Amino acid sequence: MSVPDSPAIGVPSDPSGPVASGSARPSRLDAAIAARLRRTADGLVAAVVRAHDSGEVLMVAWMDDEALHRTLTTGRATYWSRSRREYWVKGATSGHHQYVRSVALDCDGDALLISVDQVGAACHTGHRTCFYTELPVTAPEAL
Amino acid sequence: MSVPDSPAIGVPSDPSGPVASGSARPSRLDAAIAARLRRTADGLVAAVVRAHDSGEVLMVAWMDDEALHRTLTTGRATYWSRSRREYWVKGATSGHHQYVRSVALDCDGDALLISVDQVGAACHTGHRTCFYTELPVTAPEAL
Repeated sequence: MSVPDSPAIGVPSDPSGPVASGSARPSRLDAAIAARLRRTADGLVAAVVRAHDSGEVLMVAWMDDEALHRTLTTGRATYWSRSRREYWVKGATSGHHQYVRSVALDCDGDALLISVDQVGAACHTGHRTCFYTELPVTAPEAL
Repeated sequence: MSVPDSPAIGVPSDPSGPVASGSARPSRLDAAIAARLRRTADGLVAAVVRAHDSGEVLMVAWMDDEALHRTLTTGRATYWSRSRREYWVKGATSGHHQYVRSVALDCDGDALLISVDQVGAACHTGHRTCFYTELPVTAPEAL
């Protein structure tokens, strides 16, 4: 698999508006796809990751346009780290790779569903999925 | 189930980091749960909704503290509409109710996984799931 020689270096220009805005960083994403995205104020869409085999929901991460471009064209799930403000390829340091099987956009363009073959644990804590903390549903008529 | 008479006004003391911020609106959410949330700049966490029976991912919506409180205590999935800036109970107008079976928080507190019994279509377009638009994965060595 080829990796671009010169990644687009990202200095956010100006993510404006409460919901929709343009890409915060330079991106090679196909313009027709970019036009469908409805980003947060900081230029991101939510990426829901599920295991291709079991359907289990593994994690949620964030993508900007360029992260989505890299995910689609390399087949390796690539996200934008909000805390470190940099791209990260899942598994690059942990070895817990995510090989992309399919990507779907939702009806209003603010979320992606990424089906992956997950190597090892998806969660940095070692759990298979990040959603291991149950919250109490206390509805009196809960099913 | 008792509902507090005087809602605890939620300005969490210290949601740390560049992303987290306090609850944007007054909330009755349990303080211990609120303290674990890591919100977007507009005070929201992503809620991934899946069908309890099939495990299918149906949609992504957004919750602030109060929406999560209502979801946990009524058993009816309740979200914050970013466009209308109001709470909405899924199915209130469409009849496509979501009865909550379980709620899980992810490891870093910025996403929820809501398992529901979905009545009818989850998507406002009439599709069963909102993720009906496939994007092309063009990686040369895609699996």
